[in-house]
Amino acid sequence: MFITFEGIDGSGKSTQARLLAEALRGDGRDVVLTREPGGSPGAEEIRRLVLEGDPDRWSAETEILLFTAARRDHLERLIDPALGAGRIVISDRFADSTRMYQGLSRGDLRAVVDKLHALMIGREPDLTFIIDMDPDVGLARARGRNGSEERFEDFGAALQHRMRQGFLDLAREFPGRCRVIDGNRPVETVTAEVAGIARAALG
Amino acid sequence: MFITFEGIDGSGKSTQARLLAEALRGDGRDVVLTREPGGSPGAEEIRRLVLEGDPDRWSAETEILLFTAARRDHLERLIDPALGAGRIVISDRFADSTRMYQGLSRGDLRAVVDKLHALMIGREPDLTFIIDMDPDVGLARARGRNGSEERFEDFGAALQHRMRQGFLDLAREFPGRCRVIDGNRPVETVTAEVAGIARAALG
Repeated sequence: MFITFEGIDGSGKSTQARLLAEALRGDGRDVVLTREPGGSPGAEEIRRLVLEGDPDRWSAETEILLFTAARRDHLERLIDPALGAGRIVISDRFADSTRMYQGLSRGDLRAVVDKLHALMIGREPDLTFIIDMDPDVGLARARGRNGSEERFEDFGAALQHRMRQGFLDLAREFPGRCRVIDGNRPVETVTAEVAGIARAALG
Repeated sequence: MFITFEGIDGSGKSTQARLLAEALRGDGRDVVLTREPGGSPGAEEIRRLVLEGDPDRWSAETEILLFTAARRDHLERLIDPALGAGRIVISDRFADSTRMYQGLSRGDLRAVVDKLHALMIGREPDLTFIIDMDPDVGLARARGRNGSEERFEDFGAALQHRMRQGFLDLAREFPGRCRVIDGNRPVETVTAEVAGIARAALG
C-alpha cells in the first residue's frame, strides 16, 4: 500500500507521516518512510538543483520537468521496489504537491502537470491524507522554522490561502483515495485518526 | 533562423557548427553558437548532473526528463530570446539527439520522447544538417578524444551503425528541414556545402 501526506506548508504533514510510520511499525508492519522532492539518491540531487540558488532561476515549466524527473527516479529506485516486496510506503508529499505548487501557484499549468504525470509517472497513491490547517497558523509555523530550503514557503498569506483551498478541491477531485484530516487539533488526536483510517484500509 | 547540427559521435558536427558560425559572421550576420545538452547556465548544470557519475545512475526515462528540462531552459533563456532579437542560432545537437540517443538506443522510447517534446518544447529547427559519416571512422575519432564526458560515445560499433541509420531515417521523416551532408570528405569541402545551403536558406 502506497500512502501519501499532502497539505500546505506548516500543516504538520511531515510529523504525521513520521508518526503513522511509527504506529504501523509498532503493529509489526514493514514500512518505508520517504519524502518528496527527493527520496532516492538521484532524486535528492535533483532536489538540491531545484531548491538551491535564486528562486527564479528555473521557470515553472522547467521546474515541473525537474520534479517529474526526481519523481520518476524515486518511483523506480525506491517506491516501486518496496511496494513490489510487499512493504508499505509512506511519502511526505508526492504528485499532488506538483499539481498544487506548480499547477496552481505559478500560472495555469495544471493541465501540463497532469499530462506529464500520465506520460512519465502513472502511479497514484492508494491513500492520501490531506492535512487541513488554518492557512495563517501554517504560515506562521513554516516561517518559524530554521533551514535553508524555505523558498516554497515564502509566497505569503494569499498563496497559502489559495493552496489550502486547492488541496480541499483536490480531495473532491480524487475522493477514492483522499481523506481530509483536520490538522488544527493536538498532534496525538490527528495521529490517532490517521492511524485508524490507515489500519482500516490495510485490513 | 534556427539551425541545428546532428549526427553520430565523431561525425564532425561540432566542428561544422563552429565553421558555419564563422562563415556567417564573416558575411556580417549576427550568430549565436550554442550546444546541447547545455547551452544556458541552468541547462549546463543539468548536463553535469546527467553526464557525471555512473552511466547507469539514471534510467532512460529519467534521462529523457532531465534532458527535456535542460532543453526547456536552453530554449527559454537563450534560443527564443536570440531568435526574437533577429539573431541566427546554431546549435550543436538539439531534440533530434534525444530522439536518437534515448528514443532509439535505450528501449523503444521514441513515442515518449515525441510526446514529451510536443508537450514541453514544441519548437523544431528551421534547418538541420545531419552530418553523415562512416560509423567505424566516427567511432575511432570519438574514442581518440580526451575528456571526461565520453559516456555517450562508448556504446560500441553496433550502436554506432544503428545510430547512423537512425539519423538517415530521421532525415526522411523530416524532409522539410533536414539535409544529409556527406561528412567523409575534407572539412573545408563539407563546410563549403553547408555554408552554401545555409546562405541559400537565409536568402
